[in-house]
Amino acid sequence: MSERRPHQPLRRGLLKASLWGSVAFAARPLVAQPLKVPDWTRQLGRPAGDGTYGLPSEFEKQVVRRQLSWMARVPESAVNFTPLQHQKGILTPSGLHFERHHGGIPAIDPDQHELVIHGLVERPLRFSMEELTRFPSVSRIHFIECAANGGLEWKGVQLETAQHTHGMLSCSEWTGVKLSTLLGEVGVKPRAKWLLAEGADAATMTRSIPIEKALDDIIVAWGQNGEALRPEQGYPLRLVVPGWEGNLQIKWLRRLELGEQPWQTREETARYSDFMPDGTARQFTFVQEANSVILSPSGGMKLDQTGFHEIRGLAWSGRGKVAEVQVSRDGGQRWELAQLEGPVLPFCLTRFTLPWRFEGQRQLLQSRCIDETGYVQPRLDQLVAARGTASFYHKNAIQTWEVTNQGEVRNAQV
Amino acid sequence: MSERRPHQPLRRGLLKASLWGSVAFAARPLVAQPLKVPDWTRQLGRPAGDGTYGLPSEFEKQVVRRQLSWMARVPESAVNFTPLQHQKGILTPSGLHFERHHGGIPAIDPDQHELVIHGLVERPLRFSMEELTRFPSVSRIHFIECAANGGLEWKGVQLETAQHTHGMLSCSEWTGVKLSTLLGEVGVKPRAKWLLAEGADAATMTRSIPIEKALDDIIVAWGQNGEALRPEQGYPLRLVVPGWEGNLQIKWLRRLELGEQPWQTREETARYSDFMPDGTARQFTFVQEANSVILSPSGGMKLDQTGFHEIRGLAWSGRGKVAEVQVSRDGGQRWELAQLEGPVLPFCLTRFTLPWRFEGQRQLLQSRCIDETGYVQPRLDQLVAARGTASFYHKNAIQTWEVTNQGEVRNAQV
Repeated sequence: MSERRPHQPLRRGLLKASLWGSVAFAARPLVAQPLKVPDWTRQLGRPAGDGTYGLPSEFEKQVVRRQLSWMARVPESAVNFTPLQHQKGILTPSGLHFERHHGGIPAIDPDQHELVIHGLVERPLRFSMEELTRFPSVSRIHFIECAANGGLEWKGVQLETAQHTHGMLSCSEWTGVKLSTLLGEVGVKPRAKWLLAEGADAATMTRSIPIEKALDDIIVAWGQNGEALRPEQGYPLRLVVPGWEGNLQIKWLRRLELGEQPWQTREETARYSDFMPDGTARQFTFVQEANSVILSPSGGMKLDQTGFHEIRGLAWSGRGKVAEVQVSRDGGQRWELAQLEGPVLPFCLTRFTLPWRFEGQRQLLQSRCIDETGYVQPRLDQLVAARGTASFYHKNAIQTWEVTNQGEVRNAQV
Repeated sequence: MSERRPHQPLRRGLLKASLWGSVAFAARPLVAQPLKVPDWTRQLGRPAGDGTYGLPSEFEKQVVRRQLSWMARVPESAVNFTPLQHQKGILTPSGLHFERHHGGIPAIDPDQHELVIHGLVERPLRFSMEELTRFPSVSRIHFIECAANGGLEWKGVQLETAQHTHGMLSCSEWTGVKLSTLLGEVGVKPRAKWLLAEGADAATMTRSIPIEKALDDIIVAWGQNGEALRPEQGYPLRLVVPGWEGNLQIKWLRRLELGEQPWQTREETARYSDFMPDGTARQFTFVQEANSVILSPSGGMKLDQTGFHEIRGLAWSGRGKVAEVQVSRDGGQRWELAQLEGPVLPFCLTRFTLPWRFEGQRQLLQSRCIDETGYVQPRLDQLVAARGTASFYHKNAIQTWEVTNQGEVRNAQV
């Protein structure tokens, strides 16, 4: 199964029981003949590069971030979606991390960059990058998801692939100093209840964050997946706000101000607030609630062969760990328990799998996540009943993929 | 502290207690004046790329893999070391994963690549990449370390940086099918005790692996850090053999043969065997025993300022999880318990930290790892007493970094 290259039908093989269960699989008996020796074995390969930064194989050129051309009004304020349907594990390669910028990607010299902390503090301070990286540090694997992820479908747009339905979601190992450590340095005054974070990009992105979260698990990060932050992810410094909407996780971080009230910036009034059915808008709805999506198979793919396949997907919750993922093959009538694969970490993508046979019958595949608080990911009609249709942010409804009897996989959302 | 850019002295700051302990830190009071608005805030940044694969900041060009030019006899048989001293977390970016090739890096078309399993099996089979990726899959974060990592120092060579002393070590999330699953498909005959793995590179690298390990935790991997394997790491298919020497983890995997005896290939006779003091050689010493290294500060760095610093390093064990890391500042007379940071996973790099003050006095920094079996990482003299000086592989001795009273950090090994 693939959307990568032209369809090559698999030859029909044996159906048999195996050590790993009763799932039969198509494979091909080995005929007694010498193995082919391809050209790449007959000649020396490319030498190890000296001083070059490695890149993917030339055969993987289709695995890249993609925009929706009609979405961006100006190229500096664009969304570039992660190819989630190709993601193999819980980590997103830094070169494929989704992008959302409001004033383009600045090229910041780390030797000139400073972070200032001021406002309701005992000792306002400024920190160079060298100073910041001397502090006690942590490394945590966390997802970041744009509050608008999936929101287009709330507006009736039906997108083809998981890259566009869910691709404002990525997951990295983040390294930095806990914000609480820095706040300890400056000394937070008792009256301080909120914190303003400001980026050094041309949009000087600003968001207000409650002091409780700031003193809990927020990271002032300089590292991503083992190296410095990527430019698109805030090089040299960003906030990582575990489980909360991406917009808060200010990139190119240059200023933190402590105060008594939220600042009511553009990004928490005109944007990133949730329109409700009664005409009001909810503000400061920070948490990315439990969500999940099946990625294999998913929209735009084609099952080339009947028989065994593994259903694979990702689940996550902004309230901590994923407790359980259920999968339905009949549009939500019956649910089966999926297996959680690999480490299950808080505020982190969690991989789930389920063995599956496709025998040419139409199916409606769904997954739903239940997190450690007991919250169950809702259906879209449940979400609409609670929040109407004027909303855009925080759409975490169950995704439906239709598998036709021809094996074509289509978005059956809405 | 940095080896990255020309030395910029930190301005002297306040010494004070803080919320995170009694460790004083140098930072700079904020003078009441408007914040500078740098050029990168005054103008729009670069737009999000469409269809491009992301790369690090131009200010991080020095963080690359490096060779030792005098080591490689031909460029296709080279070692390219990971810049471990710059690694921020437990993961190594795929673009910086160490390389060791014996016949160069082949460019393999995944649509033409096949894996054959034959020999003492019930049903010899061949698998295309499409077929393999339909099997039940796993994702695991594991280190891979060359058996020769650090071995040069056994020969009296004293290398400057951690990149060259320990940089044949990297850690990735690997995704694939368990080898035991595929062996279930072909049906292993009771007489089969060993397995030969063969690569499709020009060296057709071959190693013998005991059947017990093959049925335990080996992965036939197609994914690395969320995407397809990198070409240097075996694209499209490799073995991942958790905790065992890198040479076994055959890249560009094309053939697995089951048999009664090891094959005694070049790579397990003339190479990758351990010369002992009595003139014999030990073969099939697979496990990478417990090891650790302090990376910050480490060789080639300079402490620009006295006062608080965090000691940071990585520990690992080929026998499972790291249980404990101890740090000495006086060349091994006294030991302190370091903190283990982030997830502690089996056969995975584990990050450790220790708060530290440098006040201009000469120090000898060491770390030692104790794994979950109770094994304690040895001193070099203990290793030499047991294994002599003719050895080369599996050097896991404690590393010593000297910090001079000028703050220069030097390799004090041997």
